Amino acid sequence: MAFEISDLFLENLTNLILNKDDKAIATLFEEVHFADIAEVLDEVSFEEAIYIIKLLDSEKTSEILTELEDDIREKILENLSAKEIAEEVEEMDSDDAADIIGELSEERQERVINALEDDELAADIKELLSYEDNTAGALMAKELVKVYETWTVAGCMRRIRGQAKEVTRVHSIYVVDKEEKLVGRLSLKDLIIAKSDQKIADISKSKVDAVNVNEDDEEVAKIMAKYDLEAIPVVDENNVLLGRITIDDIVDVLKEEADKDYQMAAGLTQDVDSDDSILQLTKARLPWLFLGLLGGIGAFLIMEGFHGVFAKYAALFFFTPLIAAMAGNVGVQSSAIIVQGLANDDVKGSVNSRLIKEMFLALLNGVILALFLFVFVWIIKGKVDLALAVSVSLVAVIVIAGLIGTFVPLFLNKRGIDPAIATGPFITTSNDIFGILIYFMIAKMILGI
Amino acid sequence: MAFEISDLFLENLTNLILNKDDKAIATLFEEVHFADIAEVLDEVSFEEAIYIIKLLDSEKTSEILTELEDDIREKILENLSAKEIAEEVEEMDSDDAADIIGELSEERQERVINALEDDELAADIKELLSYEDNTAGALMAKELVKVYETWTVAGCMRRIRGQAKEVTRVHSIYVVDKEEKLVGRLSLKDLIIAKSDQKIADISKSKVDAVNVNEDDEEVAKIMAKYDLEAIPVVDENNVLLGRITIDDIVDVLKEEADKDYQMAAGLTQDVDSDDSILQLTKARLPWLFLGLLGGIGAFLIMEGFHGVFAKYAALFFFTPLIAAMAGNVGVQSSAIIVQGLANDDVKGSVNSRLIKEMFLALLNGVILALFLFVFVWIIKGKVDLALAVSVSLVAVIVIAGLIGTFVPLFLNKRGIDPAIATGPFITTSNDIFGILIYFMIAKMILGI
Repeated sequence: MAFEISDLFLENLTNLILNKDDKAIATLFEEVHFADIAEVLDEVSFEEAIYIIKLLDSEKTSEILTELEDDIREKILENLSAKEIAEEVEEMDSDDAADIIGELSEERQERVINALEDDELAADIKELLSYEDNTAGALMAKELVKVYETWTVAGCMRRIRGQAKEVTRVHSIYVVDKEEKLVGRLSLKDLIIAKSDQKIADISKSKVDAVNVNEDDEEVAKIMAKYDLEAIPVVDENNVLLGRITIDDIVDVLKEEADKDYQMAAGLTQDVDSDDSILQLTKARLPWLFLGLLGGIGAFLIMEGFHGVFAKYAALFFFTPLIAAMAGNVGVQSSAIIVQGLANDDVKGSVNSRLIKEMFLALLNGVILALFLFVFVWIIKGKVDLALAVSVSLVAVIVIAGLIGTFVPLFLNKRGIDPAIATGPFITTSNDIFGILIYFMIAKMILGI
Repeated sequence: MAFEISDLFLENLTNLILNKDDKAIATLFEEVHFADIAEVLDEVSFEEAIYIIKLLDSEKTSEILTELEDDIREKILENLSAKEIAEEVEEMDSDDAADIIGELSEERQERVINALEDDELAADIKELLSYEDNTAGALMAKELVKVYETWTVAGCMRRIRGQAKEVTRVHSIYVVDKEEKLVGRLSLKDLIIAKSDQKIADISKSKVDAVNVNEDDEEVAKIMAKYDLEAIPVVDENNVLLGRITIDDIVDVLKEEADKDYQMAAGLTQDVDSDDSILQLTKARLPWLFLGLLGGIGAFLIMEGFHGVFAKYAALFFFTPLIAAMAGNVGVQSSAIIVQGLANDDVKGSVNSRLIKEMFLALLNGVILALFLFVFVWIIKGKVDLALAVSVSLVAVIVIAGLIGTFVPLFLNKRGIDPAIATGPFITTSNDIFGILIYFMIAKMILGI
């Protein structure tokens, strides 16, 4: 079932396009899933991609458009007229349609919506665009199957045939009262098993999970993952049914969220992948590298400040990379555990209790490592006071790095800022500086310099 | 719809258990989703958890058991007899049942399976346990709705009522031939819309995605996410239908995978969260910290080796944290981009072309940063040769760190090892050492020492 994009395939395709062999191209793609065609379009030249999009029929191309990488889709849409975009959009589900249109400039958005022949879809799209990004409203689609609680099973089967044709996947059928308020749900399975003369209200389940239209999309993802839901209805404050979110959208949210956290930990300011241009990659990477450089300069200035001790205790300076590295590692570990815990809702209890626990943990780890280091320095250099200075500093640095790594994400989280910022280069750089400063201060105390 | 575990709730629960007020406890949990009850059990003491499990009926507790954290479930299962476990397992779907039983010792597994009254379930579980971990076979369940291609729609509706009662969620109905080979699929929706006298073979879709029972579970997750599938049938080499995997299991696989990658990048050897004991957290964190310590000692030895130059060029040593930090940051960025690209299947093309691209990228970033550093050192120290030594080293170190960060994950991936190992402390520590070594070697050349 794996569709492989081989070099041979791409070569063949390029030739067919050069010869304008439309029939052969259409046949080539006939049995191919739109997600695979989207991948092909990512590989071919831009002109070839446009050629293929204009050739295939809207039912297929609309789905391909939703699967394309953002930057490629942007370029393709720039090359289509408002009418052409409207034709594609009319084949889509409302949530995908709103996403596509939402990527255009406000002026183009208006023209495309005006070019739509389906007024109901136009109204739906306008509504979906009105919701804030990253909320349930921005994620949901208007297509769903809904029945009124007063209907019978037989009447239901008759009427939903029409609704079901519009809905790509029917999960739960939502039951509403005459004010369109969500009062229950039932599955197609329940419907098939039931007797024809039963009332919907009798066979439906009144307990129905729903999310508010303004709920954060990551919260929705958590809820759907926790309760193993495949679709969830979206309601307003009065419980009026507005739309529904399906699990495939949540899978995308989960993947994007994981990618984003990972990138922050690695110090990348944008969503880049290795196929992007050198300029794009530089824009994403350089800012954090610059921060690291400034941190390194800070470390240099601190060490210069202690220049005087060098004659007697040169070895002190040779241990600075060790101290800085340990500070960085401990900080990254602590912050990663907290950030992951916050993402999985595992972090309960007070900030203080967590800091105290981290302090003991860091103390334990620090003492174990410091003992090892003490023995090493003593054997290698023979100077007990030097060994003591380095080891005691290691413990202090590890404890403080651990506390910073635990505290900063929690603090950011309480302020409503994404705690994942506190992982990666930000923590390592600041811990490097703190670490070196603390190191020399302690060394100064112990060695009496 | 959010069920909040407040301190008041827990206090109330503890009191009810102390008073052995079974009726009140049962009522308390009556309307609560099993995923929420599992969270409550994570919060209460172990004895209280056992009490609640033994009190609630098997239909509910079996689902709770599947949602518990691994370590708590392990302790609870140790306190149940083989018969009691068998009673829980009989209420579960075969994939959850196999997972639970699979966590027991081999001896206990046998006793629990023998204690099962349902022979078909026992046979299913034995089959599922025979598949390797992290494959489609280990992930799948045996419950599904299947029809034969020769049936009519009317006959179908009659027969699947029985099957449908067993299946928690019916997505696609799978169509098989008389040799049980998968030949097509149809949805409940198709069934409802069709006329009663049509043959299944006429209304079913013959194109049906399936995975081989030995396929890697992360591959399955990729396929289901890419094609927006909610369930996928699992077949053997002869295309005989063996079971199916549902999207909720894939959502779990995705979350676990993201957690695991993140932890590797932060240098944690096990799956820990901030609520674990100090001992568990130490076991997870200390190994990588020890690696970092060894790396720091390596850096120390290198710097000691160049001790002689200190008199004249002390400032060289003051820049080592900067060089080491930049090497680490660049390495982490490069490896993160590659690892993420591999996970999302975005990495195509040859390793060489990727390395060349990384070299140019690192050169560009390195030169920009080095220019800045050169000016800084020149102004601060007034020595052009020192500024040159540090800046040129920075460029060299950044290029080499970038190449290592790009090459190592790709190399590991080609050897079938998880490339995510090459992120985090492993890369930062080795880059620190390489960085410092290269720095001093270049400084030696430029300064003629």
